[in-house]
Amino acid sequence: MGAVAGHLYERLAEEFAGAIERGALRPGERLPSVRALSSKRGVSPATVVQAYAALEHRGLIEPRARSGYYVRRRLQVSIAVPEVRETARKPRRVSVASAIHDLFDAIADPSVVPIGAACVSPELLPIERLNRLLSAVSRELGSLGGTYGAAEGWLPLRRQLARRGVEAGIALSANDVVVTNGALQALELALRAVTRPGDIVAVESPTYFGILQLVENLGLRAVTIPCHGESGLDLAALAAALERHPLRACVAVPSFNNPSGACLPEEGRIALLQLLSRYDVPLIEDDLYGDLHHRGPRPRPVKAFDSHGRVLYCTSISKTLAPGYRIGWIAGGRYHDRIVQLKRGADMHTAIPLQAALSEFLAGGGYERHLRVLRARLATQVERLRTAVALRFPAGTRVSNPSGGFVLWVELPEHVDSLELQRAALANRISVAPGVLFGAGDEFRHYVRLSAGHPWSERTERAVATLADLVRVPTALAV
Amino acid sequence: MGAVAGHLYERLAEEFAGAIERGALRPGERLPSVRALSSKRGVSPATVVQAYAALEHRGLIEPRARSGYYVRRRLQVSIAVPEVRETARKPRRVSVASAIHDLFDAIADPSVVPIGAACVSPELLPIERLNRLLSAVSRELGSLGGTYGAAEGWLPLRRQLARRGVEAGIALSANDVVVTNGALQALELALRAVTRPGDIVAVESPTYFGILQLVENLGLRAVTIPCHGESGLDLAALAAALERHPLRACVAVPSFNNPSGACLPEEGRIALLQLLSRYDVPLIEDDLYGDLHHRGPRPRPVKAFDSHGRVLYCTSISKTLAPGYRIGWIAGGRYHDRIVQLKRGADMHTAIPLQAALSEFLAGGGYERHLRVLRARLATQVERLRTAVALRFPAGTRVSNPSGGFVLWVELPEHVDSLELQRAALANRISVAPGVLFGAGDEFRHYVRLSAGHPWSERTERAVATLADLVRVPTALAV
Repeated sequence: MGAVAGHLYERLAEEFAGAIERGALRPGERLPSVRALSSKRGVSPATVVQAYAALEHRGLIEPRARSGYYVRRRLQVSIAVPEVRETARKPRRVSVASAIHDLFDAIADPSVVPIGAACVSPELLPIERLNRLLSAVSRELGSLGGTYGAAEGWLPLRRQLARRGVEAGIALSANDVVVTNGALQALELALRAVTRPGDIVAVESPTYFGILQLVENLGLRAVTIPCHGESGLDLAALAAALERHPLRACVAVPSFNNPSGACLPEEGRIALLQLLSRYDVPLIEDDLYGDLHHRGPRPRPVKAFDSHGRVLYCTSISKTLAPGYRIGWIAGGRYHDRIVQLKRGADMHTAIPLQAALSEFLAGGGYERHLRVLRARLATQVERLRTAVALRFPAGTRVSNPSGGFVLWVELPEHVDSLELQRAALANRISVAPGVLFGAGDEFRHYVRLSAGHPWSERTERAVATLADLVRVPTALAV
Repeated sequence: MGAVAGHLYERLAEEFAGAIERGALRPGERLPSVRALSSKRGVSPATVVQAYAALEHRGLIEPRARSGYYVRRRLQVSIAVPEVRETARKPRRVSVASAIHDLFDAIADPSVVPIGAACVSPELLPIERLNRLLSAVSRELGSLGGTYGAAEGWLPLRRQLARRGVEAGIALSANDVVVTNGALQALELALRAVTRPGDIVAVESPTYFGILQLVENLGLRAVTIPCHGESGLDLAALAAALERHPLRACVAVPSFNNPSGACLPEEGRIALLQLLSRYDVPLIEDDLYGDLHHRGPRPRPVKAFDSHGRVLYCTSISKTLAPGYRIGWIAGGRYHDRIVQLKRGADMHTAIPLQAALSEFLAGGGYERHLRVLRARLATQVERLRTAVALRFPAGTRVSNPSGGFVLWVELPEHVDSLELQRAALANRISVAPGVLFGAGDEFRHYVRLSAGHPWSERTERAVATLADLVRVPTALAV
């Protein structure tokens, strides 16, 4: 319905779009000339011209002077930069919808197409090797887990994590690291270390809903700072907020923001740190996706430029190795001691056997090689999903073009309510993350986040087509 | 120094005290008559009378009419009931000293005598069996841990935990249970589910310092309710507090309070629930030690009498099985959904491989048998430690007489500062828990908590003697 329209030129355009999507026509490849195709298919040249114009309009092909049409090397659809709205700058209590429940519930259901939660498919992760190491350490270390451990975490693991930090450009030792239950707990400990209930913090807009939930659960207030799809955090807006509000922290995902995919350039990172220094405001840096750059070198964390311990660096292995192990870490700079205290007060320490297994895994090598393979696969999967959305979704749709991570941030036509889309999609056994979750208000009501964490399949392709239909036909959302 | 005093009668008393401590003279056994001992040892009858008087004063022996002296069946030293002070009832921000750090740091140091932290020795725990099961499940379940799990926890484990709840007298199903990272996180989720920053909650006095830390970290205020060593929570004081303050919750450890060992009788439990119902105030019940009763039946949790979902029941396996696994659980009654939401917002879920291993362990049976053995051993260890303290510590010392758990709450002479005692003890490679940690103010400055979680040894005996010396000689505390 809607996917193949009635006009001849539309069917022709659809056919070429499919060829591009499947890779039968590759980026940079030349399309048949108008005359050749017209004669081969027995259609009028005007029909071919109309079809090519439609494809061009959708950003799939481009004309080159005196040379015909070519498949675009990179799709030209791009994310709309959220408008800087005055209301978005005022501090307010963040209220995040309960739709998160549905998002996570869907993970366990294999009948649901998993483009909702930001999960990498287990088949892309060396989880079996990690589990074998867990099996070995729990067999070998007799009373492992039989007593309380250090709140900071298992020392051999902290050494490995510090080494990874060093490789990313951060000067660290094991004593700077606290092992946490995933990046989420790292973020919570960071927020608690630098705020009290009622305080105001700056968060990106859009941003990961877990951060907004933390702000809400800790009784904090958020000032939202636009995070542009291309250039990342809007430093001018942050400067204005710092001038206007007594901010206690700035929480940012500088590398491949979830959901926007934005990556702050290096000069922006340095400027960000200088700006925050001027107001003596700590930066809580979520680097969860930093290892998942699609091309070029790994972006250096802001923490790499921090010589004053002002950055609380948070990350985890949940996107690259084992989400179910719930292991992350934080390098809290000058707030380290307070973080250790808070970690002990929260749950004593992270479970020991898992720390021991991860430590063995990282010490054993091979993680970097795995990351190289994973990055390439995720880059491909993101591109395929992006192409499919560009091909299927109606005019007015915009899609982010991330250079890392594995989620796409999709702006839909204004009439779409992403919560209704989530409901209707779930009724069709498809999980999506409604855009409204990623904003402090409802500024992303008509956005949706799609995850490319799973290998591309016909099932995903059909799911994208179904979503496109749901988006296109407003009544379909009234399910 | 001080342990064997100069006077002849003191040496004689010390000798008998040693015999009682070693078990050479057993409870109920008759001591030699004054005349017989006087003639056998070639000392005056007055010296023997003085020695027996000293032993009686220390609560070790008792006279029976026309029959001489006998070793007491149960030592008569008893915990002083904290006085109900007006100041203690006023709401205030709780501030807990950083001495907790030293307490936990000592756990990892085998050169330190471990009577500080409330840990059961790993050699008393079936940790190797649990680790073998962890080894097996992580080998068998290929991608276990490769994806996010349910915030509520692993379903097979929740079934086992609900079954344990049912055995303790609580009507539960797997759907009522949320798996947490130890009881501490359960308590935090419970507090968060029913309070907002700035709210006032009732806590016991004395109480586990982890609860006081949570109150502080969550920005709550505490009203302290005396918890008498023998009868448990003072319901009259609680009633007065409920009348005076808009309490949002009452946090209690009804079974073998840590540190006082108090156990609220069943009629008190019912009355507690009725009282709280009248004000519609939820009870956060910490049942961490409920399985560790020394004699008689297991105390039924307050939750067992709760037909309105008003009790948030928290417990863990940290005192009976595997502290390093960091697994606990909460049955949150009417607050269940909110707790699931908070758990997801805190750290997504508890690590999956450990949940799977524990599930197998509980399903495999043998846990009750282990608990029976553990209870008996802890009861013996508690009694030995209690006897040693009674024998060694100076007059004015009082010791709790718990009917469960494995910690002793010791009131020292008024001049003792427990923080100084902790420091001086650590300098002697002995870890103790300073009393000040267990109160919202400094009302327990001259108390100390001792743990009998490790098998009795000569090393422990020497440690108790050293502590006694430190307590007896005030200058020793200036170390």
